[in-house]
Amino acid sequence: MSFPPDRIEFSLPEWLSERLGAVAPKPAVEDRMRLVVDLSREQVRHATGGPFAAAVFEAGTGALVSAGVNLVERQGNSALHAEVVAIMLAEAAIGTFHLGGLGGPDYELVTSSSPCAMCLGAVLWSGVRRLVIAARTEDVEAIGFDEGPVFAGSWAHLEHKGVRIVRDVCREEAVSVLREYVRRGGLIYNP
Amino acid sequence: MSFPPDRIEFSLPEWLSERLGAVAPKPAVEDRMRLVVDLSREQVRHATGGPFAAAVFEAGTGALVSAGVNLVERQGNSALHAEVVAIMLAEAAIGTFHLGGLGGPDYELVTSSSPCAMCLGAVLWSGVRRLVIAARTEDVEAIGFDEGPVFAGSWAHLEHKGVRIVRDVCREEAVSVLREYVRRGGLIYNP
Repeated sequence: MSFPPDRIEFSLPEWLSERLGAVAPKPAVEDRMRLVVDLSREQVRHATGGPFAAAVFEAGTGALVSAGVNLVERQGNSALHAEVVAIMLAEAAIGTFHLGGLGGPDYELVTSSSPCAMCLGAVLWSGVRRLVIAARTEDVEAIGFDEGPVFAGSWAHLEHKGVRIVRDVCREEAVSVLREYVRRGGLIYNP
Repeated sequence: MSFPPDRIEFSLPEWLSERLGAVAPKPAVEDRMRLVVDLSREQVRHATGGPFAAAVFEAGTGALVSAGVNLVERQGNSALHAEVVAIMLAEAAIGTFHLGGLGGPDYELVTSSSPCAMCLGAVLWSGVRRLVIAARTEDVEAIGFDEGPVFAGSWAHLEHKGVRIVRDVCREEAVSVLREYVRRGGLIYNP
């Protein structure tokens, strides 16, 4: 690598790449979330990083566009939360920096845990029209992760900009994954 | 590319890679910012993207660790703001997902414009101990860019977590770059 470096590359864990090829469209939001929570559980069992997963779907058809897991430890990169990974991969798949572009379908981000401050911003810039969440902020913070400066006004801002927010979908299943991560001694990284 | 995609790669514009090799350490914060504002001006003149630049320095010595510019249009990636690019590259250079690790030197992020909501979160997770800003939020919004849900409480949160914030360093020079971008017809992308 040259110094200062001028290039970044990251990739999903192999188990995830292999799994993604065979995912059928999921018309029901609960099925979309079930897949995402399953991926977060696989992430914990493969010990490939923090217990978080997210995916971008075409909102109407439920076709999977991309999926991500937390790559912070694996890639040594503090910004690679599951939501950022899924958004970056979705934009690469579709070839745009704005998933809500005129004339295209609507997209949604489905995430196993309520997004941190950085990821809330990333959701807004991505152009997705709906954000679907399983575990709450309080569930994530209960196992020791920090969500950063997220306020009631942050959520209101997203909704004002046209992002619908759907909460508590498969919350219990997602919380059970967070607890499994702790039981297995997963790293709680925090500034 | 496989679909769904499982890999992301991005690189700095060539003019920037070439320039970075020869940067001497900058003990004074104004000199660090002058470099960053210069990079934002070069970005505008090379028409390689949004009029923003950022860099990570070793706080004590002023040695340059990484520099980034906005790569949103160039890479089709809404998360690649200059700050995120600089942070990702700094962590890659140092080989850690936390620049504030025990035993290492302190690092700081120097940015030509006040960070958006996403980048404020990214700054917090990066572990930098100081954030140095040129143009204000109001300057960025005056040319039509959106900063997202950034509140007084967001800044207070960072300071509470040990991130010192220094504002208005070379503000006028940075604002003149924002205005040059507009005069040249640069894209104001916004959701």
